[in-house]
Amino acid sequence: MANSSSIPSTPLLKDELDIVIPTIRNLDFLEMWRPFFEPYHLIIIQDGDPSKTIKVPEGFDYELHNRNDINRLLGPRASCISFKDSACRCFGFMLSKKKYIYTIDDDCFVAKDPSGKDINALEQHIKNLLSPSTPLFFNTLYDPYREGADFVRGYPFSMRDGVPTAVSHGLWLNIPDYDAPTQLVKPRERNTRYVDAVMTIPKGTLFPMCGMNLAFDRELIGPAMYFGLMGDGQPIGRYDDMWAGWCTKVITDHLGLGVKTGLPYIWHSKASNPFVNLKKEYKGIFWQEDIIPFFQNATLPKDCTTVQKCYIELSKQVKEKLGKIDPYFDKLADAMVTWIEAWDELNPPSGVAAEVANGPAKGK
Amino acid sequence: MANSSSIPSTPLLKDELDIVIPTIRNLDFLEMWRPFFEPYHLIIIQDGDPSKTIKVPEGFDYELHNRNDINRLLGPRASCISFKDSACRCFGFMLSKKKYIYTIDDDCFVAKDPSGKDINALEQHIKNLLSPSTPLFFNTLYDPYREGADFVRGYPFSMRDGVPTAVSHGLWLNIPDYDAPTQLVKPRERNTRYVDAVMTIPKGTLFPMCGMNLAFDRELIGPAMYFGLMGDGQPIGRYDDMWAGWCTKVITDHLGLGVKTGLPYIWHSKASNPFVNLKKEYKGIFWQEDIIPFFQNATLPKDCTTVQKCYIELSKQVKEKLGKIDPYFDKLADAMVTWIEAWDELNPPSGVAAEVANGPAKGK
Repeated sequence: MANSSSIPSTPLLKDELDIVIPTIRNLDFLEMWRPFFEPYHLIIIQDGDPSKTIKVPEGFDYELHNRNDINRLLGPRASCISFKDSACRCFGFMLSKKKYIYTIDDDCFVAKDPSGKDINALEQHIKNLLSPSTPLFFNTLYDPYREGADFVRGYPFSMRDGVPTAVSHGLWLNIPDYDAPTQLVKPRERNTRYVDAVMTIPKGTLFPMCGMNLAFDRELIGPAMYFGLMGDGQPIGRYDDMWAGWCTKVITDHLGLGVKTGLPYIWHSKASNPFVNLKKEYKGIFWQEDIIPFFQNATLPKDCTTVQKCYIELSKQVKEKLGKIDPYFDKLADAMVTWIEAWDELNPPSGVAAEVANGPAKGK
Repeated sequence: MANSSSIPSTPLLKDELDIVIPTIRNLDFLEMWRPFFEPYHLIIIQDGDPSKTIKVPEGFDYELHNRNDINRLLGPRASCISFKDSACRCFGFMLSKKKYIYTIDDDCFVAKDPSGKDINALEQHIKNLLSPSTPLFFNTLYDPYREGADFVRGYPFSMRDGVPTAVSHGLWLNIPDYDAPTQLVKPRERNTRYVDAVMTIPKGTLFPMCGMNLAFDRELIGPAMYFGLMGDGQPIGRYDDMWAGWCTKVITDHLGLGVKTGLPYIWHSKASNPFVNLKKEYKGIFWQEDIIPFFQNATLPKDCTTVQKCYIELSKQVKEKLGKIDPYFDKLADAMVTWIEAWDELNPPSGVAAEVANGPAKGK
């Protein structure tokens, strides 16, 4: 039905997509991605010591920014960008002028599908972003817009147009994205199961968004992709992408946008040190027990019609409701505001473009 | 973490599970299922002309009930059981005295997994029913209780116990479960994609439940598995399982129970006639546009602590809110009450057993 005409033939989006990579080392991993990434512009965010030289393999079109650049470009607002944590990647989201962003960690390699073929992760992300999402009702045969699939019996026809997709969350073969306690208990567990599915995360449902292999529509949701205050000088780490995911999901639900998860897989090569991770995570493990109910119950008023307005409103609610847990959340709420100020400074709102076409989502 | 000890080694549940099959023909299809079904008791509901003889292959332990049996056993309450429609299968759910039910259509055969091995659908359903569900938060690596999987980073530890699983909804290879319009537009579409996943349908999200390949815990949710008034003398057909699915999902959400979908696949051999289907479905295609928002917004009061109480309350809301659409829904609401009366007559409540241990779900 709806899908036969709406399956996109995957355009490259060469001039519409930037790849953002946070790193502290030479980017040898790009060699493996060369056939897929070379057509794109890379925004590399160098974390840690700015005097260190990061080598990028020849032939790639890139810009590289270190801490000095962040400080120079943002001035006092640079405080909202984390240091010594991959959360710094969000500076690249802000800097880009493209419609789409793909971000990937530098320990992620090309995975193979069950037939042994290299997976073009970017191509699948583009497919996901260019076809609608279906957050209002569950389709048991997964993505109804995929070739060979459709909406099943009982799926309301009025909902088959879906909604614009804002986020495509890809998964990981080999080393799964586990927290430190699970890493410690299951040091040898590897993800070997290739699940051939893309699905929409239903409206009203939160999910743990991982930043390792993530694409999004910057025009639709960019200002919500703030990775918070993590790492150097902060009481917490490894919750940067989670924070962005919770905020993003509440805002996409409010604005009538969709979030997909599933394909594509990348090959995650190396587990990070679980002892180091535990130190970074342990406060988050406590705090998330309160943070998640907070986001599950968060509602945004109708006049929040842009991502920026939604995000500022969320920052107020964070201050009011999470500030009680720890002073960190007061600081984080302030940083959320600073982030939006910095975003708008680098990306002056063009009026119409910033307003999401449909306004707030209707219905439940 | 949680799962290493909680993966069930799949018991047969021989004395705890009945297989319910609605049919109008000889059950030759059972030959293919023999290795998997022979240990179980079958409850066959013969639809249509009761004078016709249905042949069951030798060696199966079964009971067979036709319309005369339904009328004799239920008296005037037999009116709640549909005639000339596979909705009559729910009479078997009522009749069973077992804890679990598996129901399958007689045009469903044993499917093969990607390695070419016959899929023991029942074994997978039992695995699904014996391991918890996770409706409160989304796990991106699918069923966290499955071997080789777990909860990903960012999944709150307090939610990792999950909730009891009430329903296991299996899928179909070959002929997908499409509505008549989709069948007409895509007569040659076949489902060839084996998605190696089981997942929980999140709390607050409705789904189109298909009765072709379905298992459930009769003690936890049985009285909600009413397949409505369909077929002979009714203005609608092919919405029997959908009706049961909507009611079931609202009630499982309220009672803090889970619904899983995904594996196992069966091989659905033959598409039903799309022209006949269109005639049965067309009112449903209109009505579902109102029915689904109704169920999406339905809430049950706290004192509804049993499935029966929830169901009676839903019947009132159906009468009040859907009765306006068509007098059919008044009749259906009455039949829902009759169904519960008949259920309780055949299954006298044992007091404690009927009360769900946890009472209504907490939280969002």
